[in-house]
Amino acid sequence: RRWLTDESLSAWVEPRPVGTHKGSAGHVAVLSGSVGKTGAATLICLGAGRVGAGLVTLFIPASLNPILEVKLTEAMTYPIPETPGQTPASAALPEILEFAGDKQALAAGPGISLHPDTQRLVEGLIAQAPCPMVLDADAVTIVSRTPDLLKKARQPLVLTPHPGEMARLIGGTVQTVQENRIEVASEFSRKYGVTLVLKGFRTVVAAPDGRLAVNSSGNPAMAGGGMGDTLTGMIAGFLGQGYEPYRAACLGVYIHGAAADRRFGGVATRGMPASDLLDDVPEVIGRLERLRSRS
Amino acid sequence: RRWLTDESLSAWVEPRPVGTHKGSAGHVAVLSGSVGKTGAATLICLGAGRVGAGLVTLFIPASLNPILEVKLTEAMTYPIPETPGQTPASAALPEILEFAGDKQALAAGPGISLHPDTQRLVEGLIAQAPCPMVLDADAVTIVSRTPDLLKKARQPLVLTPHPGEMARLIGGTVQTVQENRIEVASEFSRKYGVTLVLKGFRTVVAAPDGRLAVNSSGNPAMAGGGMGDTLTGMIAGFLGQGYEPYRAACLGVYIHGAAADRRFGGVATRGMPASDLLDDVPEVIGRLERLRSRS
Amino acid sequence: RRWLTDESLSAWVEPRPVGTHKGSAGHVAVLSGSVGKTGAATLICLGAGRVGAGLVTLFIPASLNPILEVKLTEAMTYPIPETPGQTPASAALPEILEFAGDKQALAAGPGISLHPDTQRLVEGLIAQAPCPMVLDADAVTIVSRTPDLLKKARQPLVLTPHPGEMARLIGGTVQTVQENRIEVASEFSRKYGVTLVLKGFRTVVAAPDGRLAVNSSGNPAMAGGGMGDTLTGMIAGFLGQGYEPYRAACLGVYIHGAAADRRFGGVATRGMPASDLLDDVPEVIGRLERLRSRS
Amino acid sequence: RRWLTDESLSAWVEPRPVGTHKGSAGHVAVLSGSVGKTGAATLICLGAGRVGAGLVTLFIPASLNPILEVKLTEAMTYPIPETPGQTPASAALPEILEFAGDKQALAAGPGISLHPDTQRLVEGLIAQAPCPMVLDADAVTIVSRTPDLLKKARQPLVLTPHPGEMARLIGGTVQTVQENRIEVASEFSRKYGVTLVLKGFRTVVAAPDGRLAVNSSGNPAMAGGGMGDTLTGMIAGFLGQGYEPYRAACLGVYIHGAAADRRFGGVATRGMPASDLLDDVPEVIGRLERLRSRS
Repeated sequence: RRWLTDESLSAWVEPRPVGTHKGSAGHVAVLSGSVGKTGAATLICLGAGRVGAGLVTLFIPASLNPILEVKLTEAMTYPIPETPGQTPASAALPEILEFAGDKQALAAGPGISLHPDTQRLVEGLIAQAPCPMVLDADAVTIVSRTPDLLKKARQPLVLTPHPGEMARLIGGTVQTVQENRIEVASEFSRKYGVTLVLKGFRTVVAAPDGRLAVNSSGNPAMAGGGMGDTLTGMIAGFLGQGYEPYRAACLGVYIHGAAADRRFGGVATRGMPASDLLDDVPEVIGRLERLRSRS
Repeated sequence: RRWLTDESLSAWVEPRPVGTHKGSAGHVAVLSGSVGKTGAATLICLGAGRVGAGLVTLFIPASLNPILEVKLTEAMTYPIPETPGQTPASAALPEILEFAGDKQALAAGPGISLHPDTQRLVEGLIAQAPCPMVLDADAVTIVSRTPDLLKKARQPLVLTPHPGEMARLIGGTVQTVQENRIEVASEFSRKYGVTLVLKGFRTVVAAPDGRLAVNSSGNPAMAGGGMGDTLTGMIAGFLGQGYEPYRAACLGVYIHGAAADRRFGGVATRGMPASDLLDDVPEVIGRLERLRSRS
Repeated sequence: RRWLTDESLSAWVEPRPVGTHKGSAGHVAVLSGSVGKTGAATLICLGAGRVGAGLVTLFIPASLNPILEVKLTEAMTYPIPETPGQTPASAALPEILEFAGDKQALAAGPGISLHPDTQRLVEGLIAQAPCPMVLDADAVTIVSRTPDLLKKARQPLVLTPHPGEMARLIGGTVQTVQENRIEVASEFSRKYGVTLVLKGFRTVVAAPDGRLAVNSSGNPAMAGGGMGDTLTGMIAGFLGQGYEPYRAACLGVYIHGAAADRRFGGVATRGMPASDLLDDVPEVIGRLERLRSRS
Repeated sequence: RRWLTDESLSAWVEPRPVGTHKGSAGHVAVLSGSVGKTGAATLICLGAGRVGAGLVTLFIPASLNPILEVKLTEAMTYPIPETPGQTPASAALPEILEFAGDKQALAAGPGISLHPDTQRLVEGLIAQAPCPMVLDADAVTIVSRTPDLLKKARQPLVLTPHPGEMARLIGGTVQTVQENRIEVASEFSRKYGVTLVLKGFRTVVAAPDGRLAVNSSGNPAMAGGGMGDTLTGMIAGFLGQGYEPYRAACLGVYIHGAAADRRFGGVATRGMPASDLLDDVPEVIGRLERLRSRS
């Protein structure tokens, strides 16, 4: 069982070589957002960029595209067909699959709604995604209806449920989940062959091969909307740079909390907007890079 | 009579436990904004988040929703029916009541206009709101037509008039209000069973049970549009975290001024945008948290 | 002849009393912006707020209103009729005059275009404005067709031409203007009864009663689009707080340059966005306030 | 062969004289952006402003104009006819040529797409542009179909391909380009009479008269979307201030990397958004200005 700290993770964070360019740093595709929930999409894209993704492209219901073009500058947007409720429509599946064909990672779920046609889209993505994928929020809830779907995936999956979503996934209660965090995460991970990130105090990361990690970073000021979205983006950003799912998840989880600690650790136990910690992410990554160089 | 200071308030500001999550930190719903007045809605939502609300959802006239999706990232938006003047319509009442059913606080009023149908909406909310509510600005003016409406409320109300609005509430003059700030606030509070925040230099907070507080913080650089909106959001944010109305109001009022003092106290007596003080709110809260921990 | 410096201006900058509120700090109305030129409107509103205006309301062609609602938060917007070219239409005149009836200052001109119907609007405003007004950019160019219009104004006017606009105003050349900056400004000011701000290195401020000032602040990094707009807003902000036109112009001009010096003086002679200096305005004002308090 | 450093470049960076104004600092016109790619347009405009361009005007497909009005404040926008794919249409050519007639520089290419009608627009611009022009991204790809087009230009051109685009330009492979960076750049520059900036580690700048420079600045955190766009804007900004193409390119390339080093050099090798380095550009320019003054 790995205890996630600067020391235990720095070996994985190689300073990038001088010849690195945007084409070699990974292109992350994101499916997120619906009417009223465009902030989630924004934070995923920013999170992916902050850990070093070379390029980020957001699939967004077409009518919301102008909003995201305003909110994002370095990330690109890609308008897709939408349901009458301004959520992603299953008609977008072929386009997304084609676009993702030569990309390095996909992140899907936050703020996409549980609209039946959006569910079909997520199910199609799980079965056919041509690259590793992070599933969060609504995508996790969609999966909880028929978790066996996860076994159909051709590519590695990372799921990032909070305790309530984890309870839905196993058809149990939040209490059961919280009293058996490590067991629940490990079991689900093994059974369905996915990397499982069980969020909450002392986030657990479990890989299907049995590897297990517990996070040491983070603080209560992270208890706010949007925090999970930034984490999803960060894990996807590491996947995009070629990290295998377990390592991408461990790095995302730890650096996410460590950036929040850097920003807010000594300040207060509340009141940190999710977007604030993003600015501190590179400092934390650099700390790991330098630690590695020294050892 | 309580004099609001770091010392007198720190006992109420417990550092949050490590297991705090967005679901346990309160969900604040906000009704604010109409054409030309979307800044008010923005500042309320940001204020609620800065004091630690776990989630914030803004009800906004549907045609203005894209504007607010751009302006807000951590908060979510919820488009509602609108009047021909792009203000909140009474047709939104059922949706708002249903949504608020399992939420912890509501804030309503800034920038919603005095449109007759918007008035009906506010009146309906006061009578039927299923959670504590802060009423400010246009909502206060609406109340001033028939203050007896306040007695119908099933849940605690906090009203935050400035002296002009207070005068309207009691059918008096600003001069009367200003010459008898404490008496006016106390009387109204007792008579109508609401927590009353009378803004202006030395803001007064009066509870229906006779508790009374006077604020020590703040400075003249706060004399600008949007300041009251940030306060409304902050009080709602504390309500959402489970503080009873009088304490929520005292904390909001004091921290609002103290954040402005921190940002601008030694700088100048003018020129501070309302959004600037928000960044200083967590520092002030943290100061109170640490003071409490030491004593 | 007054040399504008910290020392010569501090006597005019009284720290505001503790009871100052947004209603007593002046409400500035702004007419600015057309398609492609919404940045000008933004900067005027921000400039007015940064010197302490209590409230700011922007009149904006209706189709552009959503853009400005996004760009501004503390200022309010007021959509007005527009020409087919998305510029302010003369049909807006009655509404603007009525709204401005109880306001303290108007700023008009930047980015409104020279559309014939917009010209009619400006001409109507000059003749009928119910409060002091700053005219800049397109409004100055419009005036230059028939400067006698200025004599019809019922309220004090401040004009803020750059040398090219000044040349148009007097039907001369830029060279003539630049070789006789003080004389040109003084003469125009006396002849038309307006306060004249002739921009450029060593900005000149001339009052119709013969008072004259030359600015000492500023640097070449201010040579960029939008700088004039921030100045217009700052002068309007001081007018709104009750300063007479000559003093408002002197304070605006000097503090504008001093804020730019504070931000960029030791940095470089280029590359400062106009919006950057706004953050430094309160620091400069505070310096003057403290200087006054000491003497 | 010039090695681009503070020392070798400072001779070219004269502190601007006190009388500099926006009309004498150059007006840069930009053609960039299509649906999903408005960030590119944003970054070019900001880049041009950050190196000191007096004015910046962006040509943008009309339906995207509101997005850019929100994203930009100091720069102006100019809506142009668009293709059904929301990309710039060739129908815009006459307007652009007329507008650019008295401007100092044009930048074209990023995010405009390869739509056939957009290609026609770019080809028309190359043949007829009335001022120096920077071609990047999609414009480079368009040129690669018929590079002889470059010989028709009446005004100096700067091309800024990354290795992949360079390969397309010469009909070769990325490997060939990377193994012969200097030769490839020099040859293309001479053959087509353009200034060639071959991006990547140790960016090469080649002038048609044989002058050659290699860049010393920059770091791997620049490997992300939008970085090239900021560079395009910076080169155009120097062109606009009257620098000849080779010097404009050398200054843009070096300062771009040096700003990134200043911001991120000691921080991390990943996670810097392109917009972040813009804030450091003036500091780097100032360093060069002061170095020049001392020598």
